[in-house]
Amino acid sequence: MSTPPIVILCGFMATGKTTVGRALAEMLGVPFVDTDALVEARAGTSIAEIFAREGEARFRDLEAEVCAALSFPHDASGGASGAVIATGGGALLRDETFKRLQALGTLVLLEATLDEVLRRAATMGPRPMLASMDDAAAARTHAQRLHDERRPAYHRIDRRVDTTRRRAEEAAFEIAEQLRRAPDRGTVLHMRAGARPVPGRDPRPGEDGLTRIVVGRGTLARLGEWMRDSGLAGPAFVLVSRTVAGHHGAAAKAALEKAGLRNKFIEIDDSENAKTFEQAEGLLYELVDAGATRDGTVIALGGGVTGDVAGFVAATYMRGLPLVQVPTTLLAQVDSSIGGKVGVNHPRAKNLLGAVYQPQLVLSDVDVLATLPDREVSSGMAEVIKTAIVGSPELFARLEKAGKKVPLRDGAFLEECVTACARVKARVVEEDPYEQGPRRVLNLGHTVGHALEAALGYGVLTHGEAVAIGMLAALRLSVKRKLAAASFETTARRIIEACGLRTRVSEVGDDLLQAMSLDKKRRASGFSFVLPAAPGDVRIMDDVTEQEIVAAFNSTQKG
Amino acid sequence: MSTPPIVILCGFMATGKTTVGRALAEMLGVPFVDTDALVEARAGTSIAEIFAREGEARFRDLEAEVCAALSFPHDASGGASGAVIATGGGALLRDETFKRLQALGTLVLLEATLDEVLRRAATMGPRPMLASMDDAAAARTHAQRLHDERRPAYHRIDRRVDTTRRRAEEAAFEIAEQLRRAPDRGTVLHMRAGARPVPGRDPRPGEDGLTRIVVGRGTLARLGEWMRDSGLAGPAFVLVSRTVAGHHGAAAKAALEKAGLRNKFIEIDDSENAKTFEQAEGLLYELVDAGATRDGTVIALGGGVTGDVAGFVAATYMRGLPLVQVPTTLLAQVDSSIGGKVGVNHPRAKNLLGAVYQPQLVLSDVDVLATLPDREVSSGMAEVIKTAIVGSPELFARLEKAGKKVPLRDGAFLEECVTACARVKARVVEEDPYEQGPRRVLNLGHTVGHALEAALGYGVLTHGEAVAIGMLAALRLSVKRKLAAASFETTARRIIEACGLRTRVSEVGDDLLQAMSLDKKRRASGFSFVLPAAPGDVRIMDDVTEQEIVAAFNSTQKG
Repeated sequence: MSTPPIVILCGFMATGKTTVGRALAEMLGVPFVDTDALVEARAGTSIAEIFAREGEARFRDLEAEVCAALSFPHDASGGASGAVIATGGGALLRDETFKRLQALGTLVLLEATLDEVLRRAATMGPRPMLASMDDAAAARTHAQRLHDERRPAYHRIDRRVDTTRRRAEEAAFEIAEQLRRAPDRGTVLHMRAGARPVPGRDPRPGEDGLTRIVVGRGTLARLGEWMRDSGLAGPAFVLVSRTVAGHHGAAAKAALEKAGLRNKFIEIDDSENAKTFEQAEGLLYELVDAGATRDGTVIALGGGVTGDVAGFVAATYMRGLPLVQVPTTLLAQVDSSIGGKVGVNHPRAKNLLGAVYQPQLVLSDVDVLATLPDREVSSGMAEVIKTAIVGSPELFARLEKAGKKVPLRDGAFLEECVTACARVKARVVEEDPYEQGPRRVLNLGHTVGHALEAALGYGVLTHGEAVAIGMLAALRLSVKRKLAAASFETTARRIIEACGLRTRVSEVGDDLLQAMSLDKKRRASGFSFVLPAAPGDVRIMDDVTEQEIVAAFNSTQKG
Repeated sequence: MSTPPIVILCGFMATGKTTVGRALAEMLGVPFVDTDALVEARAGTSIAEIFAREGEARFRDLEAEVCAALSFPHDASGGASGAVIATGGGALLRDETFKRLQALGTLVLLEATLDEVLRRAATMGPRPMLASMDDAAAARTHAQRLHDERRPAYHRIDRRVDTTRRRAEEAAFEIAEQLRRAPDRGTVLHMRAGARPVPGRDPRPGEDGLTRIVVGRGTLARLGEWMRDSGLAGPAFVLVSRTVAGHHGAAAKAALEKAGLRNKFIEIDDSENAKTFEQAEGLLYELVDAGATRDGTVIALGGGVTGDVAGFVAATYMRGLPLVQVPTTLLAQVDSSIGGKVGVNHPRAKNLLGAVYQPQLVLSDVDVLATLPDREVSSGMAEVIKTAIVGSPELFARLEKAGKKVPLRDGAFLEECVTACARVKARVVEEDPYEQGPRRVLNLGHTVGHALEAALGYGVLTHGEAVAIGMLAALRLSVKRKLAAASFETTARRIIEACGLRTRVSEVGDDLLQAMSLDKKRRASGFSFVLPAAPGDVRIMDDVTEQEIVAAFNSTQKG
């Protein structure tokens, strides 16, 4: 057995450091240490008292002393070694404390949404840092300010686990997986959106309903290893187009065989007009012929069409086989491979036949993007920009900083983009797996985008190009409504152009309106439209008229 | 607003009386009262002490005194009225206490599996009734004996909620629904197996993932009302065969319209050989033509084929519409409508294309069974007997007691059967929604049954007849292996015969073996076979050979 680890949990208030810490300590079989408790013991009084009588600085002094005194035998001879240490929410503000803890063991940052933090804080009794807040709005503003202050310190920690919507045991499981992560295995994110248990595997405590999302460079070589990690040890049926197989088939096969996984490659047609039930039916029969049973796994190796069709096959064959998405386009890596939407079109209705079916594993290797044509990378960047606007001010700032030279062929940059987008997407999907409400923020730019695709005829614009133009129309409308600052629109336009995306199309006028009306007919109730207010702050509005949208679109086209 | 209720929670130890009681009190906005705490206050010492020093009898005396003294103002003038009262696990043993509590308010019995009770008791610290138990086996035996002693008292309570695998808030929600139940609305059972949230509905706390199962007489007239209760207020698309529509279409339509639900009836072919993708495809197009959007609901009104096909259509149309199962055959009411298995056949593979898709509502009206031919009722009884053997010793005893005159046309008897079976099925499905393991106990009799159907050619035996013969083969094998007493087999055979089911078929021999081998090929790993040990105690065995099964089958056929 390996040496028991020393894990230091940091994070903002109410992110679960104590409860998750206890669960993790139990899972790892090591003692649990709470520095707050050590501080109280040293001071002989409660933390609330220390804050009230001597102020925060005194508390931080005591905390630093306690952290400096922490010591655990590292070798096997010392008996009990290893520990889980929960620190105070602000412990890392002192550089000496940060360095001391970093030298001691592995730092893991716990995160949670501000809503969740405030909700938990409200039910957990008074907190010293929020003690004087007597109404909810003031508490929120104060918490937000505190969090912003600490962001730089938190940002120094590489391993992170979001505890929003998780039981302690689930978060502990995710941390245990982070601890096992070697740097070259990529970033592991966890999405809890109802993935099915793997047949024949007794899920480990906290593993239920989990989708693992792995993002990295060269991660394709570890496909088989990650599958075994996820309990997917049966025969693998790889659905892949001839083109993608030519580029990455051999690497995928080698990765599966290295992990001792039997595999069979089945060819799929990944052109947009082959997203049909007829193709899905043919693939189902191929699975029958190949003797696929419920211990098999379907791997979708390719772009969006492959993910949709192969996902639908996995969702329905024998009522569902485990599914692994290995997206090979930027668009699929940042968007379509995460979230479980699968399906096929019918001439009379897009995605007529489909399912929400979560994969057990999504493995994105950004190195495979090197084989894509420029236009496809640019097109994928449209969804990157959309995701930044929807949920990642950090990524938006990163894109802004790139100026006119967005390094579309730089692996490290792409890894950063895909990781950030996967994080946002996973969080949004978790909140609303079946797109009942909040998940609709991801439709930013898509109402106009879809209408443009339909009005111009499919194939004139790529999906990403259409979405980029749609986003600009939405931004213009936000500015007109004084929801967003004009500078936000300007910056977004600059980023879109820097990614090599077009912002103008030839005249569409009435066709656009008609296409939007048709789209509206397919909705359950009314018309909702996503308007961005600021990076990370978008709103779903139901009072937007089609005329208003067309006017905004037209004005973006005039300059 | 109606008068706040007085609810008395009873039940065995560790069934959640206190935690669920607190959650329910909060949900109803009434105070929570714990009789154990009142007893401790009255005695001035802990319950453990009372047991240790003065014995259980003294504790029961105190408990009776406390219950007799309970009093709450019933009218609105008295200010605070209404309460949730948690009683000690053995409170109902005294008839005076039972009657006192019954007069005070509504009794609700909390139940949980013995495994769950022991697991909770282990983590909740010492319990007085298990205090002297120092090993797990002794604790189990003791708990089982205690529970058996109390069963008659518990049996007097009509409203029951199973708390196994539920959070306190979820169980509280289910109790709140039980309280709203009027006698003529039928029995409401709750299954938590991952039903999706209803689009556009904010689920009430504790409602997430819930399937409501309603069983009663005349309940079809309340279909629309139950749908509204479940949040299904959009247009209803009723998929129904011409025959079933002739019998029950008007009643279903009237029930929907009484609740103000728009509805459209769509004809389905419910013959076994129409369970095809072609039919499903046609129905999907009919939904497109009818303008169905995500706020619509699919209602499957009919037997097993209708449930399977309509369920598959609901599962895949626009990635899933809410689903209501209204089974009209005994087989569908006791088995196929509950559990979410939906799908269509392909000439080359049964249920090739399918899903596990939980309905939001299952509504079984036993009065509709009056229109069924005798052979179909008998056939359904085979699944009733199977379910009794799998999980309901009470129902098995009831069937045994009926002797040679099982009242197959008696509404009250059928209601009892369907309710008991739905309870067992819901519990088994909850434990294992995707049939990874435990749910396979429901396959009792089905390995031989399916093989018989295949060997004789479909249509010679009904499914139920084949399963009955399969069960007898399994029972014979259990007796041969000394797993079950010979009397169990004899009783089961007597019940099967009393239900009008045949127990013999003409020679099949080698064909049976071959059919089983084919069946085996479709499995993921090996061969598992369900053997009954006693009513309510069946085992999944993986060491049974096909030869052994055929020998057992042959010996049942010889006499």
